[in-house]
Order: sequence, then structure tokens, then C-alpha cells
Amino acid sequence: MGNTLGKLFTLTTFGESHGPAIGGIIDGCPAGISIDLEAVQQELDRRKPGQSKITTQRKEADEVVFLSGIFEGVTTGTSIGFQIANTDQRSKDYSHNTDVYRPSHADFTYAKKYGIRDHRGGGRSSARETANWIVGGAIARQIIKDIKITAFTSSVGDISLQNGQDLKDFSQIENNLVRCPDPVIAEKMIALIESIKKSGDTIGGTITCVIKNVPVGLGEPVFNKLHAELGKAMLSLNAVKGFEYGSGFEGTKLKGSEHNDHFNPDGSTKTNLSGGVQGGISNGMDIYFRVAFKPVATLMQKQSTIDSLGNTVEMQGKGRHDPCVVPRAVPIVEALSAMVLADLFLQSKTK
Amino acid sequence: MGNTLGKLFTLTTFGESHGPAIGGIIDGCPAGISIDLEAVQQELDRRKPGQSKITTQRKEADEVVFLSGIFEGVTTGTSIGFQIANTDQRSKDYSHNTDVYRPSHADFTYAKKYGIRDHRGGGRSSARETANWIVGGAIARQIIKDIKITAFTSSVGDISLQNGQDLKDFSQIENNLVRCPDPVIAEKMIALIESIKKSGDTIGGTITCVIKNVPVGLGEPVFNKLHAELGKAMLSLNAVKGFEYGSGFEGTKLKGSEHNDHFNPDGSTKTNLSGGVQGGISNGMDIYFRVAFKPVATLMQKQSTIDSLGNTVEMQGKGRHDPCVVPRAVPIVEALSAMVLADLFLQSKTK
Amino acid sequence: MGNTLGKLFTLTTFGESHGPAIGGIIDGCPAGISIDLEAVQQELDRRKPGQSKITTQRKEADEVVFLSGIFEGVTTGTSIGFQIANTDQRSKDYSHNTDVYRPSHADFTYAKKYGIRDHRGGGRSSARETANWIVGGAIARQIIKDIKITAFTSSVGDISLQNGQDLKDFSQIENNLVRCPDPVIAEKMIALIESIKKSGDTIGGTITCVIKNVPVGLGEPVFNKLHAELGKAMLSLNAVKGFEYGSGFEGTKLKGSEHNDHFNPDGSTKTNLSGGVQGGISNGMDIYFRVAFKPVATLMQKQSTIDSLGNTVEMQGKGRHDPCVVPRAVPIVEALSAMVLADLFLQSKTK
Amino acid sequence: MGNTLGKLFTLTTFGESHGPAIGGIIDGCPAGISIDLEAVQQELDRRKPGQSKITTQRKEADEVVFLSGIFEGVTTGTSIGFQIANTDQRSKDYSHNTDVYRPSHADFTYAKKYGIRDHRGGGRSSARETANWIVGGAIARQIIKDIKITAFTSSVGDISLQNGQDLKDFSQIENNLVRCPDPVIAEKMIALIESIKKSGDTIGGTITCVIKNVPVGLGEPVFNKLHAELGKAMLSLNAVKGFEYGSGFEGTKLKGSEHNDHFNPDGSTKTNLSGGVQGGISNGMDIYFRVAFKPVATLMQKQSTIDSLGNTVEMQGKGRHDPCVVPRAVPIVEALSAMVLADLFLQSKTK
Repeated sequence: MGNTLGKLFTLTTFGESHGPAIGGIIDGCPAGISIDLEAVQQELDRRKPGQSKITTQRKEADEVVFLSGIFEGVTTGTSIGFQIANTDQRSKDYSHNTDVYRPSHADFTYAKKYGIRDHRGGGRSSARETANWIVGGAIARQIIKDIKITAFTSSVGDISLQNGQDLKDFSQIENNLVRCPDPVIAEKMIALIESIKKSGDTIGGTITCVIKNVPVGLGEPVFNKLHAELGKAMLSLNAVKGFEYGSGFEGTKLKGSEHNDHFNPDGSTKTNLSGGVQGGISNGMDIYFRVAFKPVATLMQKQSTIDSLGNTVEMQGKGRHDPCVVPRAVPIVEALSAMVLADLFLQSKTK
Repeated sequence: MGNTLGKLFTLTTFGESHGPAIGGIIDGCPAGISIDLEAVQQELDRRKPGQSKITTQRKEADEVVFLSGIFEGVTTGTSIGFQIANTDQRSKDYSHNTDVYRPSHADFTYAKKYGIRDHRGGGRSSARETANWIVGGAIARQIIKDIKITAFTSSVGDISLQNGQDLKDFSQIENNLVRCPDPVIAEKMIALIESIKKSGDTIGGTITCVIKNVPVGLGEPVFNKLHAELGKAMLSLNAVKGFEYGSGFEGTKLKGSEHNDHFNPDGSTKTNLSGGVQGGISNGMDIYFRVAFKPVATLMQKQSTIDSLGNTVEMQGKGRHDPCVVPRAVPIVEALSAMVLADLFLQSKTK
Repeated sequence: MGNTLGKLFTLTTFGESHGPAIGGIIDGCPAGISIDLEAVQQELDRRKPGQSKITTQRKEADEVVFLSGIFEGVTTGTSIGFQIANTDQRSKDYSHNTDVYRPSHADFTYAKKYGIRDHRGGGRSSARETANWIVGGAIARQIIKDIKITAFTSSVGDISLQNGQDLKDFSQIENNLVRCPDPVIAEKMIALIESIKKSGDTIGGTITCVIKNVPVGLGEPVFNKLHAELGKAMLSLNAVKGFEYGSGFEGTKLKGSEHNDHFNPDGSTKTNLSGGVQGGISNGMDIYFRVAFKPVATLMQKQSTIDSLGNTVEMQGKGRHDPCVVPRAVPIVEALSAMVLADLFLQSKTK
Repeated sequence: MGNTLGKLFTLTTFGESHGPAIGGIIDGCPAGISIDLEAVQQELDRRKPGQSKITTQRKEADEVVFLSGIFEGVTTGTSIGFQIANTDQRSKDYSHNTDVYRPSHADFTYAKKYGIRDHRGGGRSSARETANWIVGGAIARQIIKDIKITAFTSSVGDISLQNGQDLKDFSQIENNLVRCPDPVIAEKMIALIESIKKSGDTIGGTITCVIKNVPVGLGEPVFNKLHAELGKAMLSLNAVKGFEYGSGFEGTKLKGSEHNDHFNPDGSTKTNLSGGVQGGISNGMDIYFRVAFKPVATLMQKQSTIDSLGNTVEMQGKGRHDPCVVPRAVPIVEALSAMVLADLFLQSKTK
């Protein structure tokens, strides 16, 4: 259970980082949509490890192969199977972990829940899974072409970009290694990550996502509110510890008279502390939300931990890991958003 | 769509605040569970309006009637239908709102999505719905009797209780009007709410929830992680703008070496920044999370807004509303938590 | 589990025949549909017991009360709660059954599955549940107003109407007690049922359903084929032992050259052994299918059976039961068909 | 939509007969089950085309490759991805069909529903899909190892084996080309199919399935009855026109006094017209049901049909097709049964 996202537009996935391949099945994609296969691959490339000095040096080709559901470049309305081969598995990097429960990983909980675990690279709990989501998201985007989804790094450790959702210019996001729209702050973030990396440590951060051109009416009350579906999707992402939209946690300090978004005659609102959602339904204003990522748990330092027998053991990360997961998570946040919105868009057609 | 919560233990609901009744159907409740009907009613009473000087003065009996699925006090394994009559509807209070879109309410989005709306008290978007959740949660608790779920008010506006999850003593929560475990801070919160109320305004706040005695192994990777299901449930609650668990947003500022929870030989951890969940699965430590509530949008002040034709109109809340929704939301947060955990508990039986 | 029918248009139900009420929640009904409440009640009246000399003499008012989701006669897009009070419960009729497993009833299996059972009138396994389905079906019909669904009794015991699906005239169905479109055959069926009733026995039969004006394109391959969804719905109905559509079991004896439906230039087919469905999708021709009902298990004769301890006991039906369930099941078959088609109609909107 | 079977044990599939591969994802398989991979391949071999003179001469290796979820031969509790390459696609055989709607195929309905179709070999409507089901069923069987599922051909055209469910000896099923447990009747069936094949025609038939050692209590009332789930699964199978269980359509002619299954003191029943299911729940007796298959629509004869413009065209099957689909469908009926039972078995664990 638990390997499917969505209700009408669904992504069901499989795969461990150290098996032969990962992949998925997209169901519910409408027929007749021309799929830009290069756009799908570009999104995979944005997520790919080994892109820069501040990410893991694992090299994965991450080439997606579509196996069904697309005929002569157009969706047929049937299920879309796809696969991404694992080309650089290096199980040896993990052989030292066979019986060790890494701190703040899923090793212990998987072992206890299932009584068995695939210890290679975290098995199913590996973030490699998110490559599947990129594919699902890239297909979803082509269903809701008018909706513009833009995520970016809004903080790394203590260095943060305030109110990034209000920026007029997102053009610099892909032009720096941390995917921050402000180049000056980006430089500071990069310097912090480099210094953290040198010490064999890791650091957390946040991603902000802004979604423009959303039609009014997406989202289903009561239990499938737009922001609840977004929140659930984001909380599925490895290392995520929190989700807030609109005014978020800061908004709890405000008075109602400060917080209410007043209407313009055309139904738009003068402010947007609601974050584009009212009563769980999009109101046509920009949707924006923020996602919290904890620091990566794998350190290039010695740590003390236990093995499956409760023995204390010393361990040190020997694989290739990101000192900060946030920059590479930017396209994943976008992909998840696209899948949620495509699903709610299809649902809205039945009202 | 959207009126069902859960996968195996499900609650499906109906009802508007100003119709004859609200209610729901609980499906998937195991057979043979003795139901303490008084405990259900007590939970409803905790949520009930009109309890104190700082809540709305609407009086609702909120008496639940069970219609099926319980025979001679014991669940039969079949669906449990229940109903709560609406006894104090006062539609007149809302007659002035017929055609008006209240700021930061769901009026505009419902009208646009459905082309029709039940304007009486917000129709289906009314927080009256949450009485149904209380019933579902009270039944769910009896499935997972050993798990202890405790929520409390952790902030009102700027006044906050830090690290409430670490408190040893929750005995004072029900002894003050705001449901804060610290009586001194509670008094400050009450004073703030009274002052806000006098000015016809409202204020936001946060609720912290702590869940003890959770068995290891609840939660389904990849898309039904324990914290993702909790997050989605909380984000379904009216006025909620954010959810964080464990170290949450603050944890993003930490380094991995500070954030990792190191194991004791018995598998427990020395710290608990993970918030009791690793890889989406409970690890046996306390689960804790925090929920952000915006200030109530209905003000006892004049506000300018628009009607359905886009005309600017003046409006002022005339109904009876809470100046701060947080204290009454405490039992609702617990009820949602109970339903999520009961559902995941049943799911864990099939592994 | 198991108390919900449908995916987008869903009916979730509760209720035992001897509790205070039965009822349900319809979710996914589009907004803006004017509901003819009298039409709903008329369908309930068609199913109602006590209608004639050949049905049970139980009198039930079977009055449906809608509690939500319909505002000023029009659906609002939110969930529709409804309830039907049980007014003539006569639990005493069943007190003799407390501990007895009636042959070919659900008593034994419920008792073993759940370890507890509500013995009054079969509890949740009672056919009283089908009154809820009538309500769901009556609402569903108003979503797909152009589709004409007509069911009728096509056999009682050995007396059968051949190829009823080809009849041009269905006007006599409601004019005789067995709901057979051919008045001459109807008289024979009635005579058979009366004679069976006199001997305290019961008899089985079949219902044929013909659905006209179905748009091309309803039904979802691979696992939600139109005929598979119809079949599942019909097999949910008490006493049903079989389902066939189009050429059905007889068609297995034909050669492909006899069975193939050849096209007219407009895409209609010259014959319709396919029964209006090809590859699980409606092709615009009439859909027709046949449903097999076993004889009612409750006899007004002495039968030997066992109690929960395995003791042999004598029993005799003392309640008021139908000698043949088929005539009263006619509107239920229509109601189930309407729900399945409304659901698939909504699903087809997302393609 | 529509590419998933099951609720807890689920199979989601993809693939067209003439794409690079078909495959699927099994979710909900419990952890810790040793998978006999050869047993899976053997089931695929039973379904494989080209096995004998009475089946299609297409040769497909049908080798399944598992990509995840099984670690060192044991299930890990995570999703199981698998794939079967299409090695003998021969698209040329279908090039003549590009624009032609074959009679009694899904060509017309797919084209109208989706506005596009993959004309190669029927695209997604191809029976090649059922190879995926074999894999799902073979895994499912290993979850419910004690349950014995045996299907066989019970009729071809007019030649039928009566009451095959009562046979004591099923050992001959795999020893003849039609998979009929009675070798004498098998010979007659084979002779009929050979003669039909010679004339370029096809013939229908039925399969009976008997399931032994089912524990009491599988099946969920009201809408997920055991026989309703079996019926839906069988009606998903290409060419199926009907489903009956227990006494089926013949039982409708009986009186209640003839049809009731009377109890033995141990809860078993003296007769089994109920077919092992009462009130939708297994009662521990043998489950048996019968499935009707129409004759294959592809003929090796000239047929007149239309193209997408409504022009009349002559066509003749040129591919390699089965004159009777029934023998090869035997393992598919078993596979679908296994998946339904495994799913209901897991569901029963939560009661």
C-alpha cells in the first residue's frame, strides 16, 4: 500500500535505488495530449545528482523510457508505463551498512515494520524514488499547460529570502547552483553549503513554490481541499518536516482585521494572505506555499549508532550524498504540485 | 467528492450548519469493540460552542444519535450511521449575507465552483462540520485505546508556550478556557482574546499535539506516510494554514550533526527531533506536531466587500462567532489524529 | 468496509432493518441539478413491501428525508445525506431467531466473520438496505436524464419471456403485479407465485434490464469496464446468483461468424449480441443484461437447522416475506444501473 | 483510470501488445513471503500462445522480469514492479487494420471515446494484457497458499461437462489441449475446435472454477461481496459475457425448499447450491462459479465492415488468433481468482 498518488490522475511507482530500475504507471491522463518528451527529460536533468560542486557526485543518466500509453507522440487515454534504469548503483558503497540502523533514517522503522529490509541505499525509502515523481509531474504539466508552477530555494540554514512569493522576476532561479531567484542571497547560500560540506556536515532549508494562472474552482471540500492535497504531497517528500501556505505560521500572530483579504470588484483580492485558496478551493489569486526540509541525515563524519542487535557501532557515510537537499528538491516540489493540480483539474470537470 | 477521510477506517460526512441535521457514516470499524457512548458525547461537549466568555455564544445541544452498527453497546463490524440535529440554527442571522461574499471566507469560491451556494452560515464550509469529526475521532480512539493523544493551545497571537511537547504534566489543559497546559501563559492568552473580542476583532494561534504510546510501524511509505496523513487531516480543518512535525520549520536551520536522533541500544532515540516518525513510519517515540490557525475571518466590525454582482457593500458580522478558534479546535485536532492513527493501525495489520 | 458503491458518484450507506433508521450519503453529485423529490419517492414506492397479494405484507412508509446537499430544490455540489425511518420493525417476529442460523442466509457467515451479529431481521444483510439504493438511483437518474433504464421480470421459475430486450413496448410493466411487459406471461407468473406461496414455499426468477440512449464512450478499460461495473452492482443485490449481458451464456454456443455484430455505415450495428458494450465501453446500441435471483431462503414451512452451538433445531419463518423477490427487485436493478451509469458518465468527462 | 484491480492487494498495469513491453506494479503484498519465481513463470507458460495446434501460433517468450519489491527471494512489503517484453510483435500483421473498425472488437469504441487509438493489435484492449494478470495472480497465490484454485474448460460450443464442480479428480486438466478434466469430453472439444478452425471460424465456451479450503469470513458486505468481486474480475476478462456462481441461472427455476443448503452440526452444509458464499461472505464450503466466453471476433474469413469514415470495406484476419479462447483463459481465471481472494484475505485481517 501507499505507492499511489492521486485520485483521477494517478502515479503508482516502484523501485529501489539499487535494483535494476525504478519506474511507474500514470493512469487517468486524458487522451490526445501531445507529450514533449524532451521537456520530461529536461525536468529529470534538473533533479539529477552530480550537477555541481554542492551536490552529490553520483552520476545517474536518469533516462526515462516510456513503454505504453503514448502513440506517435500523443497520449491515447490508456495507462502510461515508464522506467528509469539504475546505471550507477555501486552497492559496495552500502555494504558496510548491512545491519546498521543509520540515525534519523528509515532503516530502523522499515526493519521493524516489515521484518526485512533492502539495506542497499535505503531501499524503497531512497530519494531516488523522486525521479519517478519528476516524470509524473512532467506529464501532468502538459495537462494544465496554462498554469505556471515555479519553485525556488527560499532559505538554507539561517540565510533566507523573505517574501519570495512576491518577486516579479524568477528568471535567475536556474542560473545559480542553489536555485534562489536572488543572485546575491544565492551566493551566500552556496558559500554556506560549501563550508558545511567541508566539515562533512549537512544543512536544512526551505523551498517556496508559487503557482500562477490557476483557474478559480480547483479543490474539493471537505477532505480534499486544494491546500490539503498539496500539503500531503509535499509531506511525502523525503526530509520534509513542514508545510505552510499563504500567511502560514506567521499569520497566526495577526488579527482578523489585518489578515482578511479584501475583494476588488472583479473578485480578485487586494492582498493575498489566503495564498490563493479559500475554503479549500482556488480563488484565482497566486497559490504559494513553503516547505521545510531538515538537514540530510547522512554525514561524512563519524557517528555512533546501533546495529539490529542493539550493539553500538561506529559508522561514517561513505556514499556520495548531498550536503543540502534543497536545491535538487526544487523540481520535485514543482512536479508534485503539477500532479496535484492536474488531478484536481480533472476532478473539477465533473462538477 | 471529498467528503470521506481515511482508507480502511473511513468517515464520510454530510450536513450544513443550517439544515435539519449533520451526520456521517463510519465504515471499517472492527467488530466487537465496546463503545463508551458517554465518552463520545463528552468529546462533543468539549468542542461545543457557548462554553465560556471567550467563545461564541451560540448554544447547540450537539447530541449525537447512533443509528446503526452498534448492537447492545458493541460494534458489529457494519457501518455506523450517526446524526447530530441542528437545534439553534437562526438562519435570520445570515439573511443579510445572501448575496455577499465575505472576505477570506469560502463564499466566493463555492459560488464560482458550483454556480450555487447555500449562504446560510457558510453552508458546507461551516466549521459545524467538525462536530462530525469529533464523533469519528471518539469512535477511532476506542480502536487504539493504548495510544494517548493530547492536544493543547501552544500560542495565541504573540503569546506562546515553547516546547510544550516536552511537558511532563498535561493535567491543567482542561482547567482553563484556552486549553493551555501552563496556567500562567493561559491567563495571558485569555486576556489577549478578551481584549481582541472587545475590539470586534479576532486572533490566530497554534495547537500542539503530542501522541504517546504509538507502536512502531504505523504509516505506509511512499505516499501515505504517517506525517503526511496527519498533515492532510489537519489541513482539512477550517482556518488551518500550516503543519509541522518534529523539528519543523525551525529544524531547517540546523546542521545534520545537530539534528540527527541517536539511538539507544533498545532502539529508542536520545533526542526526538524526528517527531516520532522516520521514513513515514512511527518509531515508537512520541509523535508531536504543530498546527497553525489564522484569525477567524468574521469580524464584529464593519468591513467593505463585494456582492455577487461585484458591487461594493458594507457588512458587519452579526452572528455569534469565536474571537479565537484555537481553544475549541483542540478536541478536533485530537479527533482527526485518532482517525488517522486508527486507519493506519488497521492498515498495519495487513503487513 | 464495503458500504460504498462507485468512484466519482458514490453512495455510502448504513442501517439495519430493525434499527431506528437506514440511510446514506451521496457524494459526487454535480451542482445545479433540480431534483424531483416526488420522483425519488415514487421509486421508493415501487420497491415498497405490502403492495400486493404476492409480496410480503410488511407495511413500511419508506419515506425519505433529505438532510443536506439540496438547497431550494437544487443540488449544491456537496454531499447529500438522507434517511428513511424504520416504522414497522416488529422485532418480536425475529426474537425466535436469536441464536439460530437460518439455512442459506447470512446468519452463519456474519456470526463467524464478526463474532457478533444483530439477529433482528438479518441486521445489515437485510434487503431493507436496498431502499437506500433506490434513493441513490433516483438521484443518479436525474444526472443522466436522457438515458432510459427499464427493467422487468423476464422469468419466474420455469415461466419465461424470451428476448424481452427486443420488445418495442414496455408500457405494461407496471400494470401487473410481477412487472412483466407481456400481460399473458405475467398472468402465468402470478399464478405460479400464488401457488408457491400457498405451499409456504418460494421461487426464483430473472430480471432483464434494457438501457437506451446511452452515449458512446461510457466505461473505463481495463478493470472498470461498463459491464463489469454493472455486473458487480447487480451481484451486490441480495439473492443474485448470476449476471450476463448481450448474448450471455447462450452466446458461448455460437460461432464467431454468427456472433459478430456488423457495422452500418453510421457506426451502429446490424445486430446487437454485444449488448451495447465493446471492449468495456458503450457503443451507443442498447445495453441489456439479465440477472438471476435464487428463491428466497425464508420459507413458511418447517425446516431443520442448527443454532450457534451446533444443536439441531426446528424453525419456521414467522415474519412476513416475499414468495418471490423478483417483482420488487425490478426498481432496484434500475437504481443500481442508474448509479453505475451516472458514475461512468462523470468519469467520461475527464477523458 | 481503470487500470487497477483490488483494494489492499492491488495490481496496476500498463502496456499494449505492440509496444516494447507490458508490465505492472503489485502493491500491498505483505512482507516476508518467499516467492517461487519459477511458479510465476510456469503460470505464464500455461497462458502462453503457440502451445498447440488449437491455439494461435504467435510465439511469445513471455518472460517476466521483477524489478523491485523482492530482495533475495523474499517480498519486502514494498511495491513489486515487473515487466514482460514484447518480443514477437509483427506490427505488419496489423498494418491493414489501421483505419478499419473490426466487428465486435473495441476499435470503434476506443476511437470514439479517446479520439485516437493504437490500432496495432488492439492496443490496450488486447488480451496480451492478461499476461500481467497471470503475474499478479501468481504472486497472490503465494499469500493464500492453503487455498486451492482450479479452473477448467466446462464447455466449448454445445459440448459441455455437467457439474464439473463436483468432480473428485482434476488431475487430467493439464493433460489435454482444452484443459477439460474429462478426457473423453476433452477429445470432443478438441475435434470441434479443429473443425471450427479449418473453416476460419471461432467458437465460444465456458470455464468453471472451483476454490477449495477457503476460510470462513472472506468478503465484505454490502458492496464488496466475495462473489461480486469475483464477478467483476471475471467480467474484466476479454470476451466474457456472463458470470454465475453456485446454482446460478439454473437455480432461478428452483423452489426455496429445493434450493436451501441445510446445515450439518459443524456448520458445513449438506448441499452447496450457495456456491460457498452466503451474504457475500465465504462459508467454508467450496466456492465455484462459471464464466461465459463469446467466440473470438477475429475470423480467418472475409468479413464486411466499415472504416473510420463510414466506408464499407472488406477485411480478413491475417494475424495469428485462437479459434477458441477458452483453454488459454483457464490460468487467467485462476489468476484473477487468486488476486480477489488475496485482497479479501488481507481485508479480513482488519476485522
